Amino acid sequence: MSWYQKEISLDSSSRGFHLVTEVVVSQFPELKKIKIGLMHIFIKHTSASITLNENYDPDVRSDMEKYFSKTVKENEPWYDHNSEGPDDMPAHIKSTLIGNSLTIPITNGHLNLGTWQGIYLCEHRNNGGSRKIIVTIFGEEKN
Amino acid sequence: MSWYQKEISLDSSSRGFHLVTEVVVSQFPELKKIKIGLMHIFIKHTSASITLNENYDPDVRSDMEKYFSKTVKENEPWYDHNSEGPDDMPAHIKSTLIGNSLTIPITNGHLNLGTWQGIYLCEHRNNGGSRKIIVTIFGEEKN
Amino acid sequence: MSWYQKEISLDSSSRGFHLVTEVVVSQFPELKKIKIGLMHIFIKHTSASITLNENYDPDVRSDMEKYFSKTVKENEPWYDHNSEGPDDMPAHIKSTLIGNSLTIPITNGHLNLGTWQGIYLCEHRNNGGSRKIIVTIFGEEKN
Repeated sequence: MSWYQKEISLDSSSRGFHLVTEVVVSQFPELKKIKIGLMHIFIKHTSASITLNENYDPDVRSDMEKYFSKTVKENEPWYDHNSEGPDDMPAHIKSTLIGNSLTIPITNGHLNLGTWQGIYLCEHRNNGGSRKIIVTIFGEEKN
Repeated sequence: MSWYQKEISLDSSSRGFHLVTEVVVSQFPELKKIKIGLMHIFIKHTSASITLNENYDPDVRSDMEKYFSKTVKENEPWYDHNSEGPDDMPAHIKSTLIGNSLTIPITNGHLNLGTWQGIYLCEHRNNGGSRKIIVTIFGEEKN
Repeated sequence: MSWYQKEISLDSSSRGFHLVTEVVVSQFPELKKIKIGLMHIFIKHTSASITLNENYDPDVRSDMEKYFSKTVKENEPWYDHNSEGPDDMPAHIKSTLIGNSLTIPITNGHLNLGTWQGIYLCEHRNNGGSRKIIVTIFGEEKN
């Protein structure tokens, strides 16, 4: 049974959905040692989130941003929390709708993702800055 | 400390929400050996998802399908990703709204679900075909 | 490798979003022993949920309740499942939108939450009563 945990800083990115699979996986050469296990990815913020979705067509990422920004509107007259600007409360809501962590199976030394699955960073602020994630992998080692 | 992992193919199902608790649990007689642990269920697709919800009244499943299909509409003029038909981009959005994995506690050899909780496969495509899930159970064995 | 699991009863709370970080963490003095690990929190209900969000301004919690109650409306004419009242089916939908479990990294004896992250109980019923959660912590012990 092995445990590895790292904090990774993701570079500032524009508001929207961004593919970060390689940025995460490349930090974990230890994946190769694990026969059966899990990778847990956790974002330490309440105005950004992470999800899995289609890893090929960039239109999926831009349509996703359009959907969430049309559905969770800025400047609703009933928002009381808006001290940081019109993207503030919508970012908190999107973060709870999408979620702050992912858990992905590890099988024979690799993440067991579907062919079309990629890890997305979802940046909900206009100027969110760099984002911290904590990645934990654990499992049974190969003989 | 024990680990078990299996890939399970779920039969093709119609668009909507389907109860699959027994299909999953019946594959894991090893549950009985575990005193404290977790079951992780992961769907390897970006147009279907899994969730826990009410396991008794089928109206909950059909109302759930109505809610998600009314909220995430087909044929929005601003979708750019629609090469696979009108149910394509809505399926990706629903998949991120609902999520692609579940983690459920194991206690004294059983899944520790509430009385009314069941595992749902959420099929967002009209013809999604068979779906693959990876189920991992791990924990401390009984003496 | 250590495992600890407890069932915790959360007191009845009004419909809305409530900060419960301290109620949960104070039950686990064992956190101190763990160098790298995870805490899993699971709610045994289909009409309440849990999430992480902003832990400082109570307006975030009340805006969150307003958003979800405006988005998932009561008394939709197409609901078939409404035997328990107008808050019944909306509570099931919100529970699937937000989710029933959280997994949080443990690092050097502490939950590795961001500065502004707190654990929310999301009560979707008008009179939901007491709610049961199962909390599991596991990981590698310090030397």
